[in-house]
Amino acid sequence: MKVLIAGLGLIGGSFALALRDHGIAEEILGVESSEEHAAEALQLGLADRIVSFEEGVPEADLVVLATPVDTIPLMAVKALNRAGGRQVVMDMGSIKGELCEVISMHARRGRFVAAHPMWGTEYSGPKAAQRGAFTGRSVVLCDTVRSDKDALATVEGIFRTLGSPAVYMDPEEHDLHAAYVSHISHVTSFALALTVLEKEREERHIFDLAGGGFESTVRLAKSSAATWVPILLRNKYNVLDVLREHIHQLQIMRRMLERDDAEGLKNAMERANTIQRIIH
Amino acid sequence: MKVLIAGLGLIGGSFALALRDHGIAEEILGVESSEEHAAEALQLGLADRIVSFEEGVPEADLVVLATPVDTIPLMAVKALNRAGGRQVVMDMGSIKGELCEVISMHARRGRFVAAHPMWGTEYSGPKAAQRGAFTGRSVVLCDTVRSDKDALATVEGIFRTLGSPAVYMDPEEHDLHAAYVSHISHVTSFALALTVLEKEREERHIFDLAGGGFESTVRLAKSSAATWVPILLRNKYNVLDVLREHIHQLQIMRRMLERDDAEGLKNAMERANTIQRIIH
Repeated sequence: MKVLIAGLGLIGGSFALALRDHGIAEEILGVESSEEHAAEALQLGLADRIVSFEEGVPEADLVVLATPVDTIPLMAVKALNRAGGRQVVMDMGSIKGELCEVISMHARRGRFVAAHPMWGTEYSGPKAAQRGAFTGRSVVLCDTVRSDKDALATVEGIFRTLGSPAVYMDPEEHDLHAAYVSHISHVTSFALALTVLEKEREERHIFDLAGGGFESTVRLAKSSAATWVPILLRNKYNVLDVLREHIHQLQIMRRMLERDDAEGLKNAMERANTIQRIIH
Repeated sequence: MKVLIAGLGLIGGSFALALRDHGIAEEILGVESSEEHAAEALQLGLADRIVSFEEGVPEADLVVLATPVDTIPLMAVKALNRAGGRQVVMDMGSIKGELCEVISMHARRGRFVAAHPMWGTEYSGPKAAQRGAFTGRSVVLCDTVRSDKDALATVEGIFRTLGSPAVYMDPEEHDLHAAYVSHISHVTSFALALTVLEKEREERHIFDLAGGGFESTVRLAKSSAATWVPILLRNKYNVLDVLREHIHQLQIMRRMLERDDAEGLKNAMERANTIQRIIH
């Protein structure tokens, strides 16, 4: 199949590698607004050619939108406008509500499959692309009743080949759960990095002492603003809701510590420990 | 050398493995208050014999205190009381202020070396012990002017053999930096786990969506209350200070999100990104 991927960064680039490694794509066309990224993507073999979105879409059997989430809804409409016949359009974005609403009345809505593979790293750009990225991770498919059966089957088949189990949700349900499980982690990690940069004036000590658990909680703070500002703004109410709860939980721990409440801290930590039932 | 290790859990057990693997310890005596852990430690080869603290200390060339931080100061005094001649006593705890103050006037203070190797995982007990644990991680040595030269040289030599570069700090300075770089990460991780457990009633979704960054920020929430309640309480003022700053940073991000302040969020994230200068 001939695949067009718009956005050859961390997600789109890794998807390109996966499509090639599993023999799914014979040819990959790439769309990249950054000249530097376009050159890198070609050099890394993420695409065979760089094309414009307008010229690329009509050629492709599958159009994949892997650009920042603020650009996806409009590109989805433009891709569907140009995608006649049996072509399939899918996205890989972290926000689904706005996208699914925007395309809901499009005459070719059936050709679209809204997908969010649950994989990422804190790095960005073509050089961040990784082989085997999606294997063993879920992919959330949204509003699949509105996709044509063959279009859905194409996307399901790709993720099955990649070893990514499909999970089905409403767009609103997806955005809510993504706020809880992914977006809040990025907010806390950014805030923790800022806290430590603010309090710890001796950078050398951050480096020397970092074995004590800091790296894992602050890892996501390296994530790109170009990716994460649009995600947070587009999932504003869900993120704010979970952020308020998180600040509340920190204030409870703070009050217990102020009062030397060993029993309260112990109970809170043991409740927190139950997360290992779910995340191994 | 004959080594006594009090506490054969994650830290003491990993130290036992490191001492053996590097040919530093010919014989390891273990002190374990839990019968189950004592049996596990023997089975895993973390100790050759389990002894009582009182009978073990006089036999050992090196006494290592690797129990929870609330028990270390008193055990340090008791070990020094029993350690005559050229014996060396060291600890591996995450809090240094109280310990160094308690032993400061001990007639044998010179035999003690206060050490904190910057390594850990979220697991606990003898089964959590890992080979190669401390290699490549710093070890903080505190108040070394009060240690006898030969005692300090013994401990420095061990960590040099393990490949752990030594960093020297005052006890107060250590506790302050440990709060910034290690302790706060545990508080945020516990609070994040509680937030998600509170908000996300459908546990299945936590599992399905967890690829989105959640595991890394919540990993430390699996850490044991027996280890972490004493650490937080004994470093209360430093932890509260950095916790207040962290809540403040989260409130700033919350206000920016409430106001759709894309520019402010972008600047905050880009400032947070600078952490990668320090933590690679």
